[in-house]
Amino acid sequence: MYEGVIGSLIERLGKLPGIGPKSAQRIAFWILEAEKQDIDDLANSIVEAKQKIRFCNVCFNVSEEDLCRICRDPRRDLKIICAVEESKDVIAIERTREFKGRYHVLGGAISPIDGVGPDDLRIKELLKRLADGVVVEVIVATDPNLEGEATATYLTRLLLPMGVSVSRLASGLPVGGDLEYADEVTLGRAFEGRRRIQ
Amino acid sequence: MYEGVIGSLIERLGKLPGIGPKSAQRIAFWILEAEKQDIDDLANSIVEAKQKIRFCNVCFNVSEEDLCRICRDPRRDLKIICAVEESKDVIAIERTREFKGRYHVLGGAISPIDGVGPDDLRIKELLKRLADGVVVEVIVATDPNLEGEATATYLTRLLLPMGVSVSRLASGLPVGGDLEYADEVTLGRAFEGRRRIQ
Repeated sequence: MYEGVIGSLIERLGKLPGIGPKSAQRIAFWILEAEKQDIDDLANSIVEAKQKIRFCNVCFNVSEEDLCRICRDPRRDLKIICAVEESKDVIAIERTREFKGRYHVLGGAISPIDGVGPDDLRIKELLKRLADGVVVEVIVATDPNLEGEATATYLTRLLLPMGVSVSRLASGLPVGGDLEYADEVTLGRAFEGRRRIQ
Repeated sequence: MYEGVIGSLIERLGKLPGIGPKSAQRIAFWILEAEKQDIDDLANSIVEAKQKIRFCNVCFNVSEEDLCRICRDPRRDLKIICAVEESKDVIAIERTREFKGRYHVLGGAISPIDGVGPDDLRIKELLKRLADGVVVEVIVATDPNLEGEATATYLTRLLLPMGVSVSRLASGLPVGGDLEYADEVTLGRAFEGRRRIQ
């Protein structure tokens, strides 16, 4: 029903992930009514991000330079690498301030259904980083779902023979959650991984 | 946690209606991975919409020219005006193909809580359109919620003394809902069964 400029705006907004036709329409009309400066800034940000953002040469995290902020930081421990699926996961882990090593962004997880095999991930690049023997531990922090577990298992098999210690993030009850709402698998894992208090 | 270009992109996306921080992050990473052409098209659409879209001089519907497509159409009945809150509502009603008259976009509804009074709506402009006596009926198609009903009541009081017939969309619209989300059949029925107010 929408034609011309507004029609193509709605159509293009509708291609964004998680934006259906109604949301696209809502955003389009919001754009028409917003301050011109805000809209120009938004459009510039979109183009600029596309132009300037690339991937770190070492860890493949998003970066505006050859090396990302974390790989450039001399205070980060070179002996530990945390392998994650996406750059988003790097941010999530950084927020905890628990991890002082460096990262390796795999670019996804093994998923035969989606046609993603080990060769589609940056696994070779990870192995290369281990070649000089500096790294002593790899934490495999892929998602705790089917694809993430499969990727972790695959990686573990490759990494153990190289003499590095391999670990996986603990599964268990989310802090602040209710025990009664935990699913069976999570609760089972929480039992398995229980820590003795004394 | 996000810095530089990607940080400002996420921040700006997060200002869009219905987009929270997580969605903004998801869209930002989608943009980084999408085809450059698609992203340029999206950014251009946003800027172009802002530049080219204005409001119809007669009915205040969104338009790329002085007169909107509907006001330019000589086949539309000049004797009936359908008053709606937003341009989105025009599209919703057009989709039903029930209405052959013209529109008047009020620009919102009376809402004391949001500080929107009758003077903030394009009511004077509607009364002006009735001055020459051509229009014989005004269908008040404001949303079937508190603000929409208040606006309809206010309009009815102004319009009836001018000798035009005033009607309101029939029930069939879910009370408390938004007109723009009604499906075509419901909205079509509502047009068919519109009740004359006096």
